[in-house]
Amino acid sequence: MSYESLVIEERSTNKKKQKPETKEIPFGRKFTDHMFTMDYDEVKGWHDPKIVPYQPINLDPAAMIFHYGQTVFEGLKAYRTDDERVLLFRPDRNLARLNKSSERLSIPALDEDKVMDYLLELVRLERDWVPSFEGTSLYIRPFIISTEPNLAVAPSKSYTFMVILSPVGPYFSGGIHPVQINVEDQFTRAVKGGTGMAKTAGNYSSGYQAQAKASETGNADVLWLDGVEKKYIEEVGSMNIFFKIDGEVVTPALNGSILKGITRTSILEVLNDWNVPVTERKISIDELAEAYDAGKLEEAFGTGTAAVISPVGELNWKGKKMEINNREIGPLSQELYDTITGIQRGRREDTYGWTVEV
Amino acid sequence: MSYESLVIEERSTNKKKQKPETKEIPFGRKFTDHMFTMDYDEVKGWHDPKIVPYQPINLDPAAMIFHYGQTVFEGLKAYRTDDERVLLFRPDRNLARLNKSSERLSIPALDEDKVMDYLLELVRLERDWVPSFEGTSLYIRPFIISTEPNLAVAPSKSYTFMVILSPVGPYFSGGIHPVQINVEDQFTRAVKGGTGMAKTAGNYSSGYQAQAKASETGNADVLWLDGVEKKYIEEVGSMNIFFKIDGEVVTPALNGSILKGITRTSILEVLNDWNVPVTERKISIDELAEAYDAGKLEEAFGTGTAAVISPVGELNWKGKKMEINNREIGPLSQELYDTITGIQRGRREDTYGWTVEV
Ligand SMILES: Cc1ncc(COP(=O)(O)O)c(C=O)c1O
Ligand SMILES: Cc1ncc(COP(=O)(O)O)c(C=O)c1O
Repeated sequence: MSYESLVIEERSTNKKKQKPETKEIPFGRKFTDHMFTMDYDEVKGWHDPKIVPYQPINLDPAAMIFHYGQTVFEGLKAYRTDDERVLLFRPDRNLARLNKSSERLSIPALDEDKVMDYLLELVRLERDWVPSFEGTSLYIRPFIISTEPNLAVAPSKSYTFMVILSPVGPYFSGGIHPVQINVEDQFTRAVKGGTGMAKTAGNYSSGYQAQAKASETGNADVLWLDGVEKKYIEEVGSMNIFFKIDGEVVTPALNGSILKGITRTSILEVLNDWNVPVTERKISIDELAEAYDAGKLEEAFGTGTAAVISPVGELNWKGKKMEINNREIGPLSQELYDTITGIQRGRREDTYGWTVEV
Repeated sequence: MSYESLVIEERSTNKKKQKPETKEIPFGRKFTDHMFTMDYDEVKGWHDPKIVPYQPINLDPAAMIFHYGQTVFEGLKAYRTDDERVLLFRPDRNLARLNKSSERLSIPALDEDKVMDYLLELVRLERDWVPSFEGTSLYIRPFIISTEPNLAVAPSKSYTFMVILSPVGPYFSGGIHPVQINVEDQFTRAVKGGTGMAKTAGNYSSGYQAQAKASETGNADVLWLDGVEKKYIEEVGSMNIFFKIDGEVVTPALNGSILKGITRTSILEVLNDWNVPVTERKISIDELAEAYDAGKLEEAFGTGTAAVISPVGELNWKGKKMEINNREIGPLSQELYDTITGIQRGRREDTYGWTVEV
């Protein structure tokens, strides 16, 4: 792997974009002044790391990304603290997961340490773009696309790795609030032996039909069941899922078709720290419905970078409506939310060493 | 749906590319002088159909195609006949399938009749690019990409439909010859409720790991089993599969995870016409192995636009090696190949009305 030293092409001051000045920033539509790019070819490996003005990508129409979907991505955030520091939350985990996703998609690995430096450099340059309102952050989207112009169904011989940055508002305006979720019984997101454990493009658009179906009946998102038996709970659209049943916390075990969320991992660590009983295991939708009927389903919440904790107020499964905790935020959900966001925003002591200052 | 009339921007004569002059043309690397493009937005629908010089696509780095894989494609060929006509093979089927794929991916439908006109117009303009050597053709790649710059996980509000053309050599130089194929027992291509029946990018790169595994042991391709039980035969990388067992032809029934190949459909029609017993049904790898052991597996062949018929000489399944018809082309495979390619090249009467003259 050959990496040259990072080149920074600065945008001239007078061309700078307007930064959003409210907290109502729609997710992922506004981008900062610069982006990071680095290319790969078989001779040079990953090379030519550059920070350049945010600009269009120019690709041959035969570039493999357009035809065979060989691509991976990540999503993390930079948070502004009250004392004007900028923190990232476990960014090493995102780069490690990016490489794991790449392995599944036959994309050459990145040097995680070097890429971490480039990432920090980019955020440093754009640090004025990190918003400060409660719940806002600078969303960081690293991604790799296959660029070889070739219609043969085979791994690309060239790639571009890019990082773009987008200031984003709070996932729920006015703090967290419980959402209504549909348990999908027809469409499948992922299956053993497939790409479910990788963060790759095709996993997401394949869920649009199920999303549309869910939202027709007022649901905000989809809860996916396993692709084999349509029985075991996997995860929500872009979140892992946790349940508190009769005093115990349960989350589906990683089985090859679930994405290993960094928020999920962090919450498991926090719960262990708090001596809250928590297990990663198979959990069927029937078991959940029984627990509900027995009055034992105390809380349910999704976890992910976007919302950190998203309490589930209602689960709909084949006509069965399960209202959880009277559609209110449960005490465990709230405490986890406060703890993780507290660490992210530098308001609680980071005893885990999870934050990285830019 | 609003379509304006087609605009053709011709490339100036002196910039024309060199056409390949041998039949050894590698697949999908060389493209013609022009391409077709048409855009979609929510206000105008599909609009602005244009034939323009072949040129790079310019996209925002946040364009949804790079992140969530909302894209579909097709593949068909234009053949030159001995009397210098140019024929397409069942192109209406490709456009119908494109729309079916789009439906699964929440992409707005195209007007098939209008798009057929545009497609014919493009091939007409580039007809000198249709090579004449035996086994060569002009490969046609229609595809739709999602272009809205937005990181929200939701269907794009804008799309571009494009058609690019690539002169291609024979799939097997020197006529058809039997290939060795590995039966994949770990990785999964598709599952019920997923996107297997759609021609969408993510279905292809997800197979690269299995392809690499297969080729390490000398196999040319992968035979996929169903994602649920890892038991029932589905299809090969980019081909459907047929077996002749004890005088009867069998092909896996369309079950929602198999692509409905146009070659497959055509072969079913031809076999029916010939009164060769043929059934579409579930067939397990165990049943196939038993038939093989009993000496009843007479022929096996893949079917697809690329090779038309690709005889299978050897199937490898968990250490079991099945050599089929002494690794020779079976008489049925050969006759089907001659019939379909004969119709495609205008050498046999097209009693089915399958060809469309450009
Ligand atoms: C499919 C899927 N599951 C779960 C998650 C949650 O992962 P994380 O906590 O790392 O954001 C995400 C988002 O990244 C996702 O896309
Ligand atoms: C997955 C898959 N199966 C089967 C086929 C064969 O389809 P057709 O005969 O229409 O080329 C293809 C190629 O188009 C394919 O990509």
